[in-house]
Amino acid sequence: MDDKLMLMIPGPTPVPETALLAMAKHPIGHRSSDFSKIMAEVTENLKWLHQTKNDVLILASSGTGAMEAGIINFLSPGDHVLCGCNGKFGDRWAEVATAYGLQVEKITAEWGKPLAPENFRQQLEADQDKKIKAVIVTQSETSTGVLNDIKTINSYVKAHGEALIIVDAVTSIGAVDLPVDELALDVVASGSQKGYMIPPGLGFVAVGAKAWSAYETAKLPRYYLDLGKYRKDAAKNSTPFTPPVNLFFALQATLKMMKNEGLENIFARHQRLMKTTRAAVKALQLPLLSPDEAASPAITAVAPPPEVDAEKIRAIMKKRFDIALAGGQEHLKGQIFRIGHLGFVSEREVMSAIAALEVALQELGYECFTPREGVATASRVLAQS
Amino acid sequence: MDDKLMLMIPGPTPVPETALLAMAKHPIGHRSSDFSKIMAEVTENLKWLHQTKNDVLILASSGTGAMEAGIINFLSPGDHVLCGCNGKFGDRWAEVATAYGLQVEKITAEWGKPLAPENFRQQLEADQDKKIKAVIVTQSETSTGVLNDIKTINSYVKAHGEALIIVDAVTSIGAVDLPVDELALDVVASGSQKGYMIPPGLGFVAVGAKAWSAYETAKLPRYYLDLGKYRKDAAKNSTPFTPPVNLFFALQATLKMMKNEGLENIFARHQRLMKTTRAAVKALQLPLLSPDEAASPAITAVAPPPEVDAEKIRAIMKKRFDIALAGGQEHLKGQIFRIGHLGFVSEREVMSAIAALEVALQELGYECFTPREGVATASRVLAQS
Repeated sequence: MDDKLMLMIPGPTPVPETALLAMAKHPIGHRSSDFSKIMAEVTENLKWLHQTKNDVLILASSGTGAMEAGIINFLSPGDHVLCGCNGKFGDRWAEVATAYGLQVEKITAEWGKPLAPENFRQQLEADQDKKIKAVIVTQSETSTGVLNDIKTINSYVKAHGEALIIVDAVTSIGAVDLPVDELALDVVASGSQKGYMIPPGLGFVAVGAKAWSAYETAKLPRYYLDLGKYRKDAAKNSTPFTPPVNLFFALQATLKMMKNEGLENIFARHQRLMKTTRAAVKALQLPLLSPDEAASPAITAVAPPPEVDAEKIRAIMKKRFDIALAGGQEHLKGQIFRIGHLGFVSEREVMSAIAALEVALQELGYECFTPREGVATASRVLAQS
Repeated sequence: MDDKLMLMIPGPTPVPETALLAMAKHPIGHRSSDFSKIMAEVTENLKWLHQTKNDVLILASSGTGAMEAGIINFLSPGDHVLCGCNGKFGDRWAEVATAYGLQVEKITAEWGKPLAPENFRQQLEADQDKKIKAVIVTQSETSTGVLNDIKTINSYVKAHGEALIIVDAVTSIGAVDLPVDELALDVVASGSQKGYMIPPGLGFVAVGAKAWSAYETAKLPRYYLDLGKYRKDAAKNSTPFTPPVNLFFALQATLKMMKNEGLENIFARHQRLMKTTRAAVKALQLPLLSPDEAASPAITAVAPPPEVDAEKIRAIMKKRFDIALAGGQEHLKGQIFRIGHLGFVSEREVMSAIAALEVALQELGYECFTPREGVATASRVLAQS
C-alpha cells in the first residue's frame, strides 16, 4: 500500500510528523539572527542529550563523516591506535584510520559477539611507552545488534592515561545511557537518522578538553571536517560552512520532544522494546545473533535456521505488511535479518512487527513454534514492564 | 511579518513548494529499490544539467565539502596547483589545498574584478616541466558577484596538457552555461542550496575521465570524501554512506522542474534577472562592485557610497519588506550588499526588491536618484527582454 511504510531498519528511522512538517518550512538564511537562535537552542539540547558540558558540533555529513572527523582531528600520521572490530562499523573505523596512515591494531571479536574488554586491558597495559594515542570503539554495532561494554573499556583507557577514547555512538545515543562527562569520553560521534528521529544529513561530534589538547598538535590534514572551525563558529552560534537549515528545523523539533520525554524514559522505552523483541523472537524459536548480556537496545539481529531464507522473510514483511526490516551486511548478507527499534518507535509497532513475522514464517512453512506464541510473549513482556 | 521571508541571498535560495512538500515525506530506506529508482533518475538529470555523460556524484555535504573532494581525490602531497583568488571562495580553495600540503601558487585579482586569463596562460606556458597538476578556478565568485572566464582559462589549461581543471560551480551551475563535456572540464563541484533550488545539505561533483586517471595515483588521504567509493556505488544506483534521502526527494522534484523549463530558458532567465538588477541599481546611482563584462548571473554586489550604510539598507529591507539580502564578507563587510537572483527567483521578485530598495534609500536620506527611476528602469529592461 502506498505511503504505509513502517521503517524498522537501524536508520533512517521513523520521523515524527512535527519534524517532517518543520522540515517543509521555507529555508532561512544561515547567517541570520533567526538561525543563530535555532543553533543556540539545538546545541544546548544536544549537550543535554550527550550529558556533557563540552562541545557538541554539528556537521553536514552522514555518521561516517562525523566519525571520521572524530578520528582525524586528534591524531598525526603514524600514530598508533587500537580499534575494536566486531562488525561492519568497527571495521570501517579501522579502514578510516588506515586511509590516513595511522598504525592500526585491531581488537576483534566474532560478528555477533561483544568485544572483550580484557583484550583492550592487555594491549593498553603492555603499552609502557604510551605509543597508543587513541582507542576507537563502537558502542552499538549496527551490523550485528551487539552492545559493546564502553564503560569497562573506557576504564582501561583511563588507566593507560595517554590514549583518547573515540566512541561511535551512531546507533546508541538517545537509545542507551552514555554519560559523556561522567565517563570523561573524549570524542563521541553520531548521525541524525537514528535516535535523533530526523532524516539523514547531520553528523554530531562531542569533543572533550583532552581531545582539544590533542587537536593542537594533531597533523592529519583536514578542512571540511576540521572540528576547530566548527568549534570557533559554534561559539558565535554559527557554522563554518552552510548548514542544512531544514534539517536543523527538524532537529529543533525532535530534541524538544526528547526533552519532554526525558532521558530516563527514552532509555527505558528502548530497553522495553529490545526485551520485547528478543523474548518474542525466542518464542518463535528463532536464534538471536547477539547474546542477552550484549544486546543493543537499538536493533535486534535474528539468524534464522538455513531452511528459512532471511531475505524471503524481509520480502514478505515489506510486501504484505509494509514493514521494512534490514538485511545482513557483508558475510552475513542473506544469513540474518535485523529489526530496528530505535528512535521514534512505539510498543504498538513492535507488536505489529512480531505479529507480521509470525505470518511470514508460517507462509514460508516454518512451523517450529506454537502459533501466536510470538505475540503472546510480546504482550506478556510489555504487560510486565 | 511571520512566514513572509523572501530569500535574495546567494544561498540558501528560495525553494518551490513542490520540493518543500516532497521533503516532508517520510524517509525511506536508502538500500531499498525505491531509493535506487530515485538515485537513478536524479543522477541522469544531474548529468543533463551538467551537460556531461561522465559521473556526477552526490555527497552529504555543503558545497565546500564537494569542492574539497574535487581537489583531494586527484592530487598527491607536494603537488603544484594554480588557484584563482579574487574573492572569499577562491581564497578558501587555496586554504584547502594548503591544508593538504599542496604547493599553491595563487593567481589573484582585486575583489570585484575578474581573474585575468592571461595570468594563467603565463604560468602554464612557463611550466615546461609540467609541474602544475591542477588549476582551481571559481566560476561565479559568490562573495563579489564576479563571473570568471572559465572558457578562456580552460583553453590555456588544455594547451598545458598535464594539469587538471577543477571548477567551483557552486553558484553558477543552473544559472549560466557550463558545458562540462564540450569544454572537457575535469572536475566541477557545486552545492544544493543554489541553482538546484533545494535546501543545503547535498554536494555534487562531476568527474571526467582524465581526473579518474589521476585518481588512480593520487595519494592525499580521504575516506568520507573518497569519490571512488561514490562512483563504485553510483554504478549500482546506491551511495557508500547514508544519503540525506529527504533532500533527494526535493532534488528529484526540482530537477524535473528544471528539465521542464529547459537549460536555455533557465540561463536566459538568470541573464534577464541579472541585467534588470544591474540596470536598476545603476539607475539608483549606486555603484556595482563587478564590471558588466564579468557579472555573475547569480548575484549582484552593490557598493553604496560611504554616506549610505550597506548594513542599514539590509536591515530596512529585512524588517520592512521581509527581503533577505546578503552582506559583504571579510574586508567587504559593511561595504557592500548583495542581491541574489539565483535559482527559484522570478521577475516579480526582482521588481519588488528594486522597489523596496528605493524606499530603503529614501528612508536613509539618499537622494541622488530620480524617484521611481529604479523600478521604471527594471520594467523597461524586462519589457525589452
